Amino acid sequence: MSFGARLESRVRARRSQLVLGLDPEPARLWPESLAAAPAGGRPAERTAAAVVAHCTALVEAAAPACVAAKFQLACFERLGAPGWQALEEVVGRAREAGLLTIADGKRGDVPVTASAYAQALVGSTRGPLGDIPGLGVDAFTASPLMGADALAPLVEAARTAGAGVFVLVRTSNPGAADLQDLTVAGASGDSPAPLWELVARLVDRLGRADAGDGLADVGAVVGATGPAHLERMRELMPRAVFLLPGVGAQGGRIEDLGPAFAPGPAGGLVAASRAIADAHEQVGGDPRAAAADAARRLGEEAWERFGAGS
Amino acid sequence: MSFGARLESRVRARRSQLVLGLDPEPARLWPESLAAAPAGGRPAERTAAAVVAHCTALVEAAAPACVAAKFQLACFERLGAPGWQALEEVVGRAREAGLLTIADGKRGDVPVTASAYAQALVGSTRGPLGDIPGLGVDAFTASPLMGADALAPLVEAARTAGAGVFVLVRTSNPGAADLQDLTVAGASGDSPAPLWELVARLVDRLGRADAGDGLADVGAVVGATGPAHLERMRELMPRAVFLLPGVGAQGGRIEDLGPAFAPGPAGGLVAASRAIADAHEQVGGDPRAAAADAARRLGEEAWERFGAGS
Repeated sequence: MSFGARLESRVRARRSQLVLGLDPEPARLWPESLAAAPAGGRPAERTAAAVVAHCTALVEAAAPACVAAKFQLACFERLGAPGWQALEEVVGRAREAGLLTIADGKRGDVPVTASAYAQALVGSTRGPLGDIPGLGVDAFTASPLMGADALAPLVEAARTAGAGVFVLVRTSNPGAADLQDLTVAGASGDSPAPLWELVARLVDRLGRADAGDGLADVGAVVGATGPAHLERMRELMPRAVFLLPGVGAQGGRIEDLGPAFAPGPAGGLVAASRAIADAHEQVGGDPRAAAADAARRLGEEAWERFGAGS
Repeated sequence: MSFGARLESRVRARRSQLVLGLDPEPARLWPESLAAAPAGGRPAERTAAAVVAHCTALVEAAAPACVAAKFQLACFERLGAPGWQALEEVVGRAREAGLLTIADGKRGDVPVTASAYAQALVGSTRGPLGDIPGLGVDAFTASPLMGADALAPLVEAARTAGAGVFVLVRTSNPGAADLQDLTVAGASGDSPAPLWELVARLVDRLGRADAGDGLADVGAVVGATGPAHLERMRELMPRAVFLLPGVGAQGGRIEDLGPAFAPGPAGGLVAASRAIADAHEQVGGDPRAAAADAARRLGEEAWERFGAGS
């Protein structure tokens, strides 16, 4: 079963389009997680243990309201080898909690290297000393800057694994305007359009669905902070899943995301990180309870607006 | 001392502009390295040990002819936590051999995440359980797709560490043409230009040098496979170091790289991976000897052409 079909089925079963963002920041780990770290060892190992405890607690609290978890690879990589080990453990916890898993690393490189990233994320690495399994996530984010030949090995490997790829189409930061919004001369007689429109067309071409009206296995990262473009994006990518970061801390609002859900309740995935993990800083009390409550409210808001008819 | 000044001094001292690319592929590790792997353990651990042995032997063989080593992060990440551990070890070996170290991961993300990547590569991560040192490389590659605000934390962190950033301006793969060569309408009255020219202007704006005629700490990744653009790039980025991958296996030729070296012998860094590591497949014999010979020839070719007057 393709990623699009798997996602549709999971969204309906869990009645949620909410993605729990896991971007663990050592200075903001929940107190109970710090207490779970071993007393001895190197800071990297102790911090990685606390990160596992924090993410596990966060997953337990928020999972009932979510359909997926998104892992910010940078936050694990900065802890070195113990961080990568922690990432593997936390991916396992999310899976056990019934969540789909999305690795957010925005990778992109020349084809031979793109293949290596695909092995790391959704495939495995063969060699004379045995096969090495990758992270085994259900989807990952990728950068289109290096062109179609650089995306191809990522898409192929994902497809083989039944996984999905979310290509950066228009990101949630203010600097997205610097390159992604530049007007480019149209190819083959098309009229001039912003760069992100060309990337959107590429995403549409690359994706495949199990059935004609199903969701495709190549989706788009579309910042929830720039909802003005959503209708046009949906026109250009009618079957793509939109991964929508930027809700909450970055200012995006669920109510503005309507066009993402035109193909159905799984057409958009609303990603929130700090709005859930740091909810207790706003409302006080136990971090677990605050996170569970924030996730429930975000998940319900999206489902009530865009889950109807499912 | 800034990265530009450090690089200039190292290039003159070693009389080399050659960068040894380390992209370890388990199926192509040297036989002696496979033999160095422990007999027991998981495939990831055994393969990581063989990768360390392979990269160490390669560094020992090629270092005398090189000024830097470039680590393809994907190739280490696909081995999981043991791979990241191997990366740390190999970075240490390269440093011991007198080489500057360049992490090639083409990272790019929203500012808060870009800061986390910077911590992983050139900084450290502070937290309540102690500071965690990053990889501590001398430079790294970065993607400009998300704009200036996403590059800023990378550049700031690198500058603080005396390190450098190489921004993707025009890459060495055929797909580079898909986005990077698109004609964009000029900002503020400039005439239309390819997208890579705008990125080049951004690189020029971001970089800083210790002295007016010194090399800047923000450089450009410029595929050696597209030398037609080099003169224009040098015009747009007069003080940037050009990191030039694609020599050898990808078809780039050192003789075509002249404009890169206009600001001096350290203006260009010629990166070669398979042309050195797999040289024995072409010429036969001992892989170490073949690698040492290939590196010496490539290094001398560049130095004889572009090291003159130094």
